[in-house]
Amino acid sequence: MSKNLLKVAVVGATGYAGCELIKILLRHPETEITSISAKVDRPEPISNIFPVFKGQIDLVCGELDIRAASKAADLIFLALPHKVSMEFAPKFLESGKKVIDLSADYRLSSVSEYEAWYGTKHTSAELLSSSVYGLPELYRKEIVKAKLLANPGCYPTASILGCAPLVEKSLVETDRIIIDAKSGVTGAGRTPSMGLHFPEANENLKAYKINQHQHMPEINQELSKLAGSKVGVTFTPHLVPMNRGILSTIYFTLKKEMETVEAIRIYKDFYKAEPFIRVLDENIFPETKNVYGTNFCDIGIKVTDKRAIVVTAIDNLWKGAASQAVQNMNIMQGYKETLGIL
Amino acid sequence: MSKNLLKVAVVGATGYAGCELIKILLRHPETEITSISAKVDRPEPISNIFPVFKGQIDLVCGELDIRAASKAADLIFLALPHKVSMEFAPKFLESGKKVIDLSADYRLSSVSEYEAWYGTKHTSAELLSSSVYGLPELYRKEIVKAKLLANPGCYPTASILGCAPLVEKSLVETDRIIIDAKSGVTGAGRTPSMGLHFPEANENLKAYKINQHQHMPEINQELSKLAGSKVGVTFTPHLVPMNRGILSTIYFTLKKEMETVEAIRIYKDFYKAEPFIRVLDENIFPETKNVYGTNFCDIGIKVTDKRAIVVTAIDNLWKGAASQAVQNMNIMQGYKETLGIL
Amino acid sequence: MSKNLLKVAVVGATGYAGCELIKILLRHPETEITSISAKVDRPEPISNIFPVFKGQIDLVCGELDIRAASKAADLIFLALPHKVSMEFAPKFLESGKKVIDLSADYRLSSVSEYEAWYGTKHTSAELLSSSVYGLPELYRKEIVKAKLLANPGCYPTASILGCAPLVEKSLVETDRIIIDAKSGVTGAGRTPSMGLHFPEANENLKAYKINQHQHMPEINQELSKLAGSKVGVTFTPHLVPMNRGILSTIYFTLKKEMETVEAIRIYKDFYKAEPFIRVLDENIFPETKNVYGTNFCDIGIKVTDKRAIVVTAIDNLWKGAASQAVQNMNIMQGYKETLGIL
Amino acid sequence: MSKNLLKVAVVGATGYAGCELIKILLRHPETEITSISAKVDRPEPISNIFPVFKGQIDLVCGELDIRAASKAADLIFLALPHKVSMEFAPKFLESGKKVIDLSADYRLSSVSEYEAWYGTKHTSAELLSSSVYGLPELYRKEIVKAKLLANPGCYPTASILGCAPLVEKSLVETDRIIIDAKSGVTGAGRTPSMGLHFPEANENLKAYKINQHQHMPEINQELSKLAGSKVGVTFTPHLVPMNRGILSTIYFTLKKEMETVEAIRIYKDFYKAEPFIRVLDENIFPETKNVYGTNFCDIGIKVTDKRAIVVTAIDNLWKGAASQAVQNMNIMQGYKETLGIL
Repeated sequence: MSKNLLKVAVVGATGYAGCELIKILLRHPETEITSISAKVDRPEPISNIFPVFKGQIDLVCGELDIRAASKAADLIFLALPHKVSMEFAPKFLESGKKVIDLSADYRLSSVSEYEAWYGTKHTSAELLSSSVYGLPELYRKEIVKAKLLANPGCYPTASILGCAPLVEKSLVETDRIIIDAKSGVTGAGRTPSMGLHFPEANENLKAYKINQHQHMPEINQELSKLAGSKVGVTFTPHLVPMNRGILSTIYFTLKKEMETVEAIRIYKDFYKAEPFIRVLDENIFPETKNVYGTNFCDIGIKVTDKRAIVVTAIDNLWKGAASQAVQNMNIMQGYKETLGIL
Repeated sequence: MSKNLLKVAVVGATGYAGCELIKILLRHPETEITSISAKVDRPEPISNIFPVFKGQIDLVCGELDIRAASKAADLIFLALPHKVSMEFAPKFLESGKKVIDLSADYRLSSVSEYEAWYGTKHTSAELLSSSVYGLPELYRKEIVKAKLLANPGCYPTASILGCAPLVEKSLVETDRIIIDAKSGVTGAGRTPSMGLHFPEANENLKAYKINQHQHMPEINQELSKLAGSKVGVTFTPHLVPMNRGILSTIYFTLKKEMETVEAIRIYKDFYKAEPFIRVLDENIFPETKNVYGTNFCDIGIKVTDKRAIVVTAIDNLWKGAASQAVQNMNIMQGYKETLGIL
Repeated sequence: MSKNLLKVAVVGATGYAGCELIKILLRHPETEITSISAKVDRPEPISNIFPVFKGQIDLVCGELDIRAASKAADLIFLALPHKVSMEFAPKFLESGKKVIDLSADYRLSSVSEYEAWYGTKHTSAELLSSSVYGLPELYRKEIVKAKLLANPGCYPTASILGCAPLVEKSLVETDRIIIDAKSGVTGAGRTPSMGLHFPEANENLKAYKINQHQHMPEINQELSKLAGSKVGVTFTPHLVPMNRGILSTIYFTLKKEMETVEAIRIYKDFYKAEPFIRVLDENIFPETKNVYGTNFCDIGIKVTDKRAIVVTAIDNLWKGAASQAVQNMNIMQGYKETLGIL
Repeated sequence: MSKNLLKVAVVGATGYAGCELIKILLRHPETEITSISAKVDRPEPISNIFPVFKGQIDLVCGELDIRAASKAADLIFLALPHKVSMEFAPKFLESGKKVIDLSADYRLSSVSEYEAWYGTKHTSAELLSSSVYGLPELYRKEIVKAKLLANPGCYPTASILGCAPLVEKSLVETDRIIIDAKSGVTGAGRTPSMGLHFPEANENLKAYKINQHQHMPEINQELSKLAGSKVGVTFTPHLVPMNRGILSTIYFTLKKEMETVEAIRIYKDFYKAEPFIRVLDENIFPETKNVYGTNFCDIGIKVTDKRAIVVTAIDNLWKGAASQAVQNMNIMQGYKETLGIL
C-alpha cells in the first residue's frame, strides 16, 4: 500500500487482550502491525500461538527487543501484566514513541496506593503525573495530547461509566455505592489454573476477592475526582461461566427522590455526544451478548424509592481492553474516533 | 417390599422440579411413588418424558385425576405453576391428604399481596392462615404439624437464609438490604422461549425483573416477621448461562461496627443445629458447584466498615425446590430430617 | 458518502444468518443496506430485534414488500427458510435483481430430490438449471455470471470442502465415505423448541437425523459431480453445546496406501489458490474456535493404513452461511473476493 | 452403625473419578470409607479439596501410607494415573487386600502393548495374567473371583458395549470399524493446562490424538477377544465443551443386509439380563444428559444399506469410571449388583 500507515507494535501479544488487539488492528485502515512480542519459550509465528491468524498475519512473536520494536513502530501497545509494563514503558517513551499501556501500572496517580495494592515498588513513579487515564468519555481532551496512556481496566470501565453521571452531579450518597460486578472468564487471563480449569469454572458461579480486587482503587480514584471528595465503593466481583462480557449492577442511594425517566434523561444527557455509550430506554436492561465484540457500553437504569439501580454491560476484551485502546489511539492520532471499531 | 412405605403422588411431573423430586423419591428409603401426573397431550410413561428414568420407574404420566391420585397416595407433591396449585390443593386436603405445594400459591399470608403480585384472584384464600411456610431452619416446629406446606421459592430460600441471623438480631438497617441474586436457567422453568433458547442464553448474562420479581414479597414477608417490622429489600435477579445453582450476594448496612469473625460467629451460632446450613470460615466463599445436587445452603460472610456482605449458594432445584420439599416431608412424617437427601 | 455503493436488501433478517449478514455488510466498504425485512408481528427497528445494532443501523424491519425492496436494492440476500425463498426469488429476478439465496430452495438440481427431501412441490423448478451452487472453491467461474446464487448449507460446506480433493482425484472408495459432523446450536435456527431450550441443550450431546438430514442430498449431489459417478455418503449430524462452529470428521477408505504428508500435499495443491482454505500441517487439527467469526475452512488430515481421516472446521454462520454469501457477492460484483470478510 | 460394613480406601482421591467414587460410596449401604489419600502438598480434610463434602465426610487426605491404608481397609480403590497404580497395587495385594484399579495399568494383557502405548516399563507384569477386565456385561463370572480388578477406561466402556453384540456374532467386517467418540472435559482429568483452560475449551470443539489415543489398544484387545481374531478399529476422540458425558458414534460395515429392527433385536437380546444397558427403540438415540449421574449405557441403532450406525452414551465419570468400579465391587463382594448405583 502506498498510503502512509501508522506503524504499531503489540507487546504482550499472547494474552487475550493482545489477541483481540491484533484482530482489531488488522482491520484498522490506518495501522500496520510491524512488531509482535511476548514472553515466549522460543520465537514462533503469532499464527502458531493463535491459529485464527493463519493466513492473516505471519509476523514472528519473540521476546521483546526494545531497540528493534522502537525502530519498527511509532506507537506501542503494552498488553502486559502489571509490574511488567513499567519495565518497558519508560524506555519506549525515551525513544520518542507513544505508549498505550493496557496494564494497571500507570492508572493510579498515587504511588502509595499502587504499591499497597500491587505489592511492589513502582519503578517509574515519575511518569504517573503525566500519564493519562484513557477513558475517552471523561478525558478526551487530555487523551489528545497523551504520550503515555493508561488504558482502564475492564471492571473500572464498566463501573465508572455506570456511576459518572450521578456522582458528577452530586445526586447520590457517595459512601454507599455498591458495585456487584460479574465477569466472563477471559477477564482472569490466559494462564491455566485450577479455578479456571474448564470443569471447575463451567456450571459454576462464585464471588471472589470481595472488596479486595485490585481494580477497586482505580474505581475509587476516578469517582473521587468526579465527586470532588473521597469515594469508597463496595465492590464484589463474580466469575461467570462464559468467555466474555462484564455486567455491573450498581446500587446507589439517591439524595432525593427521582423518577426512572428522570434518571435516564440525566444519563442520556451526560453521554449525548458519546458514540459508544448506549443509554437504554425505561424497562430495557443491558445483556452482555448485545455488546459482544463491540466497543459499546450499554446502560440501563431503574429508580425505586430513593434507590437507583444502574446496570452496565461491556465486552471485557473490547471496551474493557483492546478496542478501548484503539479508541484511545484514534484520539491520540487524530483519526475519527470510531475508526476500525464500529 | 414388605415394609410399609409412604405412598406419594407427584403432580406436575414434567417440570424440572418434578423431575428432581422423582429422582430423590426413587432413592428415598421410606417412600413409594404411586401416582405421576401433569398437563400432557396424551398419557405416556414418565420415562418417555425424562429418558433418564428408563429402567428406574415406568409409571404413566397422564392428566391429574384427583380422585385416583387421592386413592393412590397419602402425601401429594404439587410441582405446579402458581395459580394451578390452588385449583387442586383444597381437594386433596378435603380427602384428608397432606399436601406439599412447590408453587407460590400458599406462601404469602396476605391475600392482597398475592393477588397484586400474581395478577389473579386467590380461590382458596381461607387456607392461607393454616398453610405453613416450609423453611425448616425457621419453621421446623410448625412443619411437624403441617397439612398444607408451602415450599419456599428458590430465590427466597437463598435470600432469607442469608439474611435471617442479622435481621432477627436487629443488627442491620432493614430498609437498606440489597439482594443481588444470580440464577441458573432451570430456575426459569422448562417452557421454551426466545430468551431461554440456547444460543440466546449461552454466553450471555443479564438482569431481569429488577425489583419486580414475584419472589420479592415472599422475601419481604419473611424478613419482616424476623425483624418484627416491615422490611422492603432491593432485589435484582440475574440469569446466568448454566443449568443449576443460585448465588445470592447480599449487602447490609450494619447498625454498629463488627469484625468479620464476629459476624461469622453469629451465623454459626444461629445455624448450629442445622444439618443443611454450612457457614464457611473467614475468606472462604460459596460456589454453586459445591452445592450442586445437594440440599445444602453454603454461606460466606465478609464485613468491612459497617458493610456486611453475605454470599449464599444453593442448588435451585434441590434446596430451592425438590430436596427441600423432601426435607419438609421428612419432618412432617417424623422421619430423620436428612433421610434420602444427604 | 459520494462513492457509488451497491444497494443490498436483507430478506429474513431476524434469523442468525440474517444477523451476521447485516454485521458483515455494515463493515463492507462497497455495500449499503437499504432494505431489511422479515416475518414479523409488526414493523420495528432491526436494533430492537438485535440490540447489538443500536447505534449502528436503524432501518425498520417489516414484512417484505417486494416492489419496495426491488426499488431500494440491486442485490437481494434471502436469508429465509426453505420453501419461503422460492416464493420470492422469481419475482426479484423478474425485476432484474441479483439474488443470493441462503435457503436450500435452489441448491439441488433435481426437482424430485428436492421434493422428496423437503416434502413440498417446487414452485419455480424452471430456475434450478440456471441457479449456481455458490461454493467458490468449486464454482468460481460460474458464480461470476450468476443471477440466482444458491448459497450452500453449513454442513455441506464443511463436508464437501473436506472431500473434494480425494473424491475429484478418484483416490477413495466413494461408496464408503462417512461424515460425522458436529454443529453448534445456532445451526438449528432461532425458533425456540424443547430440544434447544438452554437447560436441555447445555451439558448435553446427541446425534440426530442419522442419515436423514436434509443436507445429505446436497452433499451427495456435489460429490457425485466431482466423482463423475453416484456417491452416497453416510452422514450423522450431532448437536454440541456451543453457539457456533461445525467440525466435520470424515472417514475415507483409500484405494491405495498413502502417507499422511502425501495426502496433505494433495489438499494443499488442490486449494493452493484459495484465500479461505487453510490446510494444516501434519499432526495439527482444526478447532472451531480458530475459525470463529471468519470465512475460513480449516482442514487437517491423517492417514493410517488405507484409512484417511479428514477433519474440517468452519463457523456455521460465516463460511457456512453469511460470509460465504458475501464472498459470493464479491465474486458476482467483481470486487476483491476477500473484501470485508478477511 | 452396628452393621458390619466393608471398609474401603480411596487412593487418588483428588481427581474427578476419586471425587465421584467418594460420593457414591458415602451413599452405599454396605461400605464405610476409612482411608483417603492422594498426592498432596500437605494433608488436609477432603472437604477442603472438594467443599461439596463439607458436613458429609471429614477424613483427612494425606499421602498414601500403604501400611496404614491396608490396616484400615479391606478393599482398595486406586483412582490413580497410569504408571502410579502399578507402584501400589502389588503391595496391597500382598497384604491380602482386594484392589479395584481405575488406571490403565492392568487392563492390557500384553506387556509389550502396555509398554509401547504408555512409554514405560511395566513393573508388575506378572499380575497381568490374573487381573480381570472389569466390564461386567462381558466378564461378570471372572469379576466374582477377582482380587485385582482393572476397571475399564471411559472411551473403551462406551465403545466396547456399542460393538460387542455385532462383533461377537461375526456380523460385521472387523477391519472397518470406525469409532467417532466425543467426550466432556472431565475425561481429560483435573490438571490445569492451556487446552483445558475455560476460555480455550468453552465454545470450542476439536478432535485430538486421532488413532493415537492410549485407550485404543484396550478397545482392540476386547473386540479381538469377542471376534476371535485381531481387530483394529479407527478411533477419533473429540473434546466437547461440557463437563461430563461420552457419546460414541460407531460405524460398521455389515456382512449382509439387515433391518434396523433386526439389529435392535440383536442388541436387546445380547443385553437382556443387563440392569445398566438400555437399548433404545427405533429412531430413538442416546443423549448424554439421559445418563448423567447414572451407571447406564444407552444404545441407539440405525441400519441403512449395509451400514450399521450405533450410538452409545455414558457418563464418563460414572459408568466410565466410578460407578462401574462400584458395580464391580458389588459383584466381587456378592452384593446386589445395582446396590447404591441405581
